[in-house]
Order: sequence, then structure tokens, then C-alpha cells
Amino acid sequence: MKSERQWDIKVSHYAQNTINPIRQVLENLNASPNPNKKLIPLSIGDPTVFGNLEPNNVIIEAMVESIQSNKFNGYLPSNGIESARKAIAEYSSTNNVQVDPKDVIITSGCSHALEMAINVLAEPGKNILLPRPGFPLYQTLCGGLGIGMKYYNLDAEKNWEIDLDHLEAQIDPSTVAIVYNNPSNPCGSVYSASHIRSFLEICEKHKVPVIADEIYEHLVFPGHKFTPIASLTQEVPILSCRGTTKRFMVPGYRCGWIIIHDKQERFGNPIRKGLNNLTHRIVGANSIVQGALPKILKEIPDEYFQDCISLIHANAKICYSITKRIPGLTPIMPTGAMYIMVGIDTSYFPELSSDLHFVERLMSEESIFVLPGKMFGVNGYIRIVLTVPSELLIEACNRLENFCLRNVILPSNQQQNGQPPTTPAKPLPLPLNLRESVKVD
Amino acid sequence: MKSERQWDIKVSHYAQNTINPIRQVLENLNASPNPNKKLIPLSIGDPTVFGNLEPNNVIIEAMVESIQSNKFNGYLPSNGIESARKAIAEYSSTNNVQVDPKDVIITSGCSHALEMAINVLAEPGKNILLPRPGFPLYQTLCGGLGIGMKYYNLDAEKNWEIDLDHLEAQIDPSTVAIVYNNPSNPCGSVYSASHIRSFLEICEKHKVPVIADEIYEHLVFPGHKFTPIASLTQEVPILSCRGTTKRFMVPGYRCGWIIIHDKQERFGNPIRKGLNNLTHRIVGANSIVQGALPKILKEIPDEYFQDCISLIHANAKICYSITKRIPGLTPIMPTGAMYIMVGIDTSYFPELSSDLHFVERLMSEESIFVLPGKMFGVNGYIRIVLTVPSELLIEACNRLENFCLRNVILPSNQQQNGQPPTTPAKPLPLPLNLRESVKVD
Ligand SMILES: Cc1ncc(COP(=O)(O)O)c(C=O)c1O
Ligand SMILES: Cc1ncc(COP(=O)(O)O)c(C=O)c1O
Repeated sequence: MKSERQWDIKVSHYAQNTINPIRQVLENLNASPNPNKKLIPLSIGDPTVFGNLEPNNVIIEAMVESIQSNKFNGYLPSNGIESARKAIAEYSSTNNVQVDPKDVIITSGCSHALEMAINVLAEPGKNILLPRPGFPLYQTLCGGLGIGMKYYNLDAEKNWEIDLDHLEAQIDPSTVAIVYNNPSNPCGSVYSASHIRSFLEICEKHKVPVIADEIYEHLVFPGHKFTPIASLTQEVPILSCRGTTKRFMVPGYRCGWIIIHDKQERFGNPIRKGLNNLTHRIVGANSIVQGALPKILKEIPDEYFQDCISLIHANAKICYSITKRIPGLTPIMPTGAMYIMVGIDTSYFPELSSDLHFVERLMSEESIFVLPGKMFGVNGYIRIVLTVPSELLIEACNRLENFCLRNVILPSNQQQNGQPPTTPAKPLPLPLNLRESVKVD
Repeated sequence: MKSERQWDIKVSHYAQNTINPIRQVLENLNASPNPNKKLIPLSIGDPTVFGNLEPNNVIIEAMVESIQSNKFNGYLPSNGIESARKAIAEYSSTNNVQVDPKDVIITSGCSHALEMAINVLAEPGKNILLPRPGFPLYQTLCGGLGIGMKYYNLDAEKNWEIDLDHLEAQIDPSTVAIVYNNPSNPCGSVYSASHIRSFLEICEKHKVPVIADEIYEHLVFPGHKFTPIASLTQEVPILSCRGTTKRFMVPGYRCGWIIIHDKQERFGNPIRKGLNNLTHRIVGANSIVQGALPKILKEIPDEYFQDCISLIHANAKICYSITKRIPGLTPIMPTGAMYIMVGIDTSYFPELSSDLHFVERLMSEESIFVLPGKMFGVNGYIRIVLTVPSELLIEACNRLENFCLRNVILPSNQQQNGQPPTTPAKPLPLPLNLRESVKVD
């Protein structure tokens, strides 16, 4: 006897709604590079792409030792091996935050740390506040599980500080967490201690815990300082998500961690146990990396980090100074991470209807690929990655300038006769050779 | 103005219900080892614990090369790097199954492969059929998301074949997948091609796709054969979950994969796209392992695998022959994987109320730790891990025998006077020195 049933396999809502906005935008992007110009991708937050920012030798050594020791082939505890959790605790402790190894959970990348932090606190019917502009993964993670998402604005006028009034207005009785990202992707901003304090006051007032995405910890430019959010509060419980991905230039290793800060036991046992439960789903990070972690976190010389930061900082200055002089563009000088946001005033580019359109045309005319602000939830910006070799960045900025000058039409108030142009304005003269004009310090 | 809200952080149902039955049983286990006897843990399915089953040198070399190449530090595609997916496709292709690299998705361990396979097909309101006895992770994964679970029996009398009538009776209109595990943990069974065919007939009749947990592929004893389920059907779509964990003795690496078998396009684009969406949550497996994978899958000499299997097989025979002669115990000879299930007839042990109690007492008296059948969903069994050094296994079996002989009371029909004993029976004489009496081939 045959069953009456027909084949009718349905994809789950969870899988269907786990949407990566980057991919969605990219799939709809209508542009291939100009075949006559070499593609310069300034789109991916992967510092290893160009070979100019390699991991320090200590990492290679530590990994080789870990493998050759034959001690790290087996299953490790699902929350991570003690020695690595201890190393993370030491690495993350400061004068006013003592991290205990038992408060560290090792994960498969910072993405996995964020996934676990979101999943332990939120569920359908609840909502999470996300920064706008912000890293699109937050949406990918919340969307799949049907967790409500509300956005709080970052203020471009104030170096992307959180618009605290706007944030406060978003909190409602179903808000179970605020995702906070410092230093920020895509903004490249680094919050001052006093700004973080004001943010924490709101969290405390409304009794909302924080999921702190601090994956760019310590990636701050000279004169600025990374302040761990947990160092400024005794009251607000925090899940800080970090890892080796950015500072150590090994995104492929997929090693991250959550640090639980809960001085008043407001997460208490249920959240700890919940996080612990979640570690059993896929059993954490690669064991070889965990074996290497103590050495990686302790033995890399400071100069290595300084050199990486100098390179990124120099690039930030190059990119800032070039884009600043381009009519219609307004860069916002970053103070950390590895990105710069450049505002696009589309009134200068009447043929380009949006930042997305700007990005498409820049790609098809100049083979420069940057991400549109849309991908991060804001219009009128492009995000440029700063980890490329300086020569390439200069070349890219040059082409960006040419592109803009070719497409710009100065708004009437900037034109001599005060009349809107009826034919495209004559492009401004081509820029000087920027390699010479921009000093890299 | 202060908010009225009080701190009241709740753990999500998802995290709360992601329950690992192993941990739950272990936490409630009331036993510490006998301080006078060295603990022999025969509980964890990790072949690397005792150092007798180390990964082959090719793996160490491949990993070191992958690290030192500096080519695998960055982000890889979220479904895995092409070269590794190609290597997996070749490794997994047979005469009648050609695997295409585009049908391979690399994951962070087989656990992650299973998580994704379950999550793409099932959701609350739907159910999945799971084997009983079976690997507890299936429950952990389904439980968190509120996916319904129904169990189909494996038949101990028939070397743990699937009880096909029972299986068929479990299928209902909400059944979206059957989890199938061959070779099996905890049973150590390996299905014949004809049994798999009969299983597939039921799947086809009821139009239910299969999530095939084939992580123990090729771990079969001489005279037996691993038959990939996908090689036997053109009709039933299959997500086969595998990885490097067991055959390659590197569970810590967290490298697994899903192979999509969908000859009739019954999964089609929605399931492929759904799986692809899910890869964006945590971005796959460690890049160093992926870089090493082509060499790992191609260059390990066959003798290595044969040696591993010989060791496990020899242990299976030792454990079988000793436990078979112990009154009250009925071992079921495995044909693959790395476990043996031993039936416990509690009527022989009136003071031991269950397999759980048996396990507790064996631990506290003899410092031997095995897992109770309860953990895998059946009563009246213990599962013994076979990857330990033979001397240790013999010592452990010796102690198990002593323990049983000390606690056994032969049921009345086996006693000479035919009367139920009123006082404990006199223990049988202690066993011979097993190291000499058991030949290891
Ligand atoms: C703000 C932010 N958080 C988290 C991540 C993810 O880090 P990982 O690669 O360790 O998962 C990124 C990566 O770009 C990021 O920019
Ligand atoms: C049947 C079965 N499936 C899956 C797994 C998980 O494998 P991995 O460690 O690659 O996640 C195991 C591990 O013991 C297992 O026994």
C-alpha cells in the first residue's frame, strides 16, 4: 500500500529568516567591475586579504606547538579548556575589572559569541535594541529566531556617539537587551568613558542588560583609548563578546569568547546555565587554537599591535584627507576599528539616486568596491575598509575622486551664477599625484 | 526620574530547553570513584583520551603546512573553502554516488552539521523521528527549538537493526525528517545494504527525507562494510552529516560537513538556500583545518585506518568475551564504531534497581565509569567505550566481573534448589587472570 503523501519539503522559518543583509544587498547589486581597471575591493572587514597585515609570528609558532604537542586533538570542555579561559581572563582583566576564568565561555568566533548571548536573553515576543548604523550580523541572528528588533541611532554629527534620547525612547517592556558595539563597525568610532557612563545610566534606569560587541577592543588610534564597558559599571550586567579575529588578524581561526560580567548576580544562575546549555550544541572552538591561546594572548610584542594600528591610522588619514576635498563627500574621521564612513550628499550627484546606486556606478566605472550605508541601516554613506596597502588605498581614493568629479553637479548655491546647471558641470581638474601629496606617518 | 522597572532577567526557553541528557544524568549521578582504585573512564566517545589512538602524522604535517603557508588566516566562504569542499566531494564519491563540491557545506563539527540539518527542516509544530537507543545530541538540538521528537526503536535482538514496523507507526503528517545513524553510537552496529534499502522504502512511501548521521563512516570491523545511505536511493533526499572527528581521531578540530543528496530536487532551492543562510550565523569551521583537509583526506595510508580498526575490534572481542560469561550481563557484539552495549538483567542484581544504579555502584566500588543506557533512551544497558588501551580494558572488565559476581544473586531457576535465595548467594570464584586468558589478535 502506497502512502498518499506527496513530496513537499518545506524550509523552516528559522532558516528562511536567517538573512544576511550583506548578501541580500550584494545579490541585488547591479554592477560588475570595469574590465579595464583592476578591481580594488574595499568592502570586506578581513585584514588578511592583501597580505600587508599578517598575523604575528608568535601566533604561527603557538599554533605549530599546539599541533605538535599532540595534546589538543581531543574534545575540550564545551565552554573551553581551562588554560585558555584562564589566559583570556588574565588578558581581559584591568585595574577595575577582575575577570574570573569561570566567567569566560569560548566560542566559535565572535559571531558565535553574539549568537549565544542573543539566544540566551531573547526570544519571540521580546525585542533587542540594535545600533544604527550597525553590523548586519545582529539582524541575521535575531531575524532567524523571530526576535523583535528595534534600532537606536548613532549620531554622525557627534562622531557616531549613541543618540541617548533616541535610545531611551526605544526601550519598552519587552526589551530584553541592548546590543552595543565599541569600537564600531561600520563607524570606526571609539566611545569616551563619559559617553559609556551616560549609556550605562539609561541601561540601569530601565534595567536592561547589555550585549557588548567589543571585538575591536584595543584597535584604537593614538590619542584614543578603549574603555571596556564592564569597567564602568557595578550595576548593569554585561555579556562582552570578543575574540582573536580582528586584533590578531586571524578571522579564519573562528575563536571568540563571551565574558560574563554580573557583579550583582542579575544574570545569576539561570543565564549562566542557559549559556552553558548552549555550548553543548556544537562544542565550541577548534582545540588547536585553544591550545595556542595562552601563548597568543601573552607573547605577542606590543610593537606588533602598534604597527598594525599605525598602518590603519595612516590609511584613515589618507582616505579622510582625499575624500574631504571631494565635493559631495563628507568623511567622518574614525578613531579606531578598521573602517571609515564617508557621507554621500546625493544632491551633488543628480544621476545617482542613492548610496547603493553610487556604489554600483563606482564599481562599474572604477572597479572600486565599497559597501553602501544601506547595508548597515543608514542611507547616504559608503563604508571604506582601511586595512589595504596604502598604495592601493591611494589609487582607490584617486579613482573615487575622479568618479565623483566626473559625476558631480555642484548645487546651485555653490555655483558662481547661482543657477542650477542645465548641462553637467565641467569636471574639476584631476587631483595631484596623491602618493606625493599625502604624508603617511 | 527613575524607571519603575526592576531587574528581572529571564533565560530564554531556547537556552533552557537545550538540554544535554548526558550532563543531566551525570549531574544526578550519585557516585565518586573508589579512592583505592584508579579510575578507568569508559564513558567518553573521545578516542584520543588515552594516547593509544593518535592522529596520523599526515594530519600533523598537513596542519603545520596549512599554518605556515599563511594562506588560511582570513575568512573563508561561509560554506567552506572550495578546495576543501572539492576534497570532501572526492573523498565521499563512490561508484554510484558522485558528490559535487557545491553539495558540500563545511561546518564546525558534525554536531553543527546536525544542528543545521535539523534546523533547516524542522520547527515547532513539526516532529523528527529519532533512533532509540540513540546519540543524545539529537534531543539537545531539537529540544531547544521546541521541535517535536518521536522515537523509533532499534532491535537489540537483531543487532540493533531498525524496528521498521515501529518506525513506520511513528510517522505522522507532521513528521519532517528521520534521523538515521549508521554506524551507530551507542550500539556499534553497522547496517546491511538490504536493511538500509528496507528503511529507505518506508521513507519513500511516506515521503520523509533523511538526516543521516554517518560520522562513523568506514569505522567498521573486518567482514563488515559501511554502505552510505545515499548510494542506495535515487528517490529519498538525504542530508548526510559527517566530519573528521572519529575516523581521523581529531574530535577537537571541530570540522564536519553536510553532503546534500537530492537527485530529484526534492529539497530543491529552498533547502539549499536555507542551509546557506544558516552558514552565515557563525561562519563555519576553522580555516587552518580547512586548508589542511585536502591532504588529510587524501594522504593518510590505509594501514593507519586498519590499525585503528584492529585495535577497536580486538577490544570489542575482549570486552564481549569477558562480559558474556558474567551472569546477568548480555553483551551485543558490535560490528563498527567504538562502543559495545551490554545488557544488564537487573533481576540478577536485586540490590541494584536500574542500569543507573548499576553504573553508580560500579563507579563507587570499582572506579569504572560507563554510561547507563538511560542516557541513550533505553533501560537495562551500559555502554562501554572501546578505544582504551587493551590492558586497561581488561583491567576494567576484570573489575566489572568482580563487581557483578559480588552483587549477583542467581535467579531461582538457575539455582540448584529451585528456591529464591533468602540471603545473598555466595559470590562465584574470582576470574582467572584475564591478561593471559584473553587473546588479543
Ligand atoms: C562588529 C563585529 N562584531 C562581530 C564580528 C564577527 O567576528 P568573528 O569573525 O569573530 O565571528 C565582526 C566581523 O566583522 C564585526 O565587525
Ligand atoms: C553519532 C554521533 N554523531 C555526531 C557526533 C558529534 O560529532 P562532532 O564531534 O564532530 O560534533 C558524535 C560524537 O560523539 C556521535 O557519536
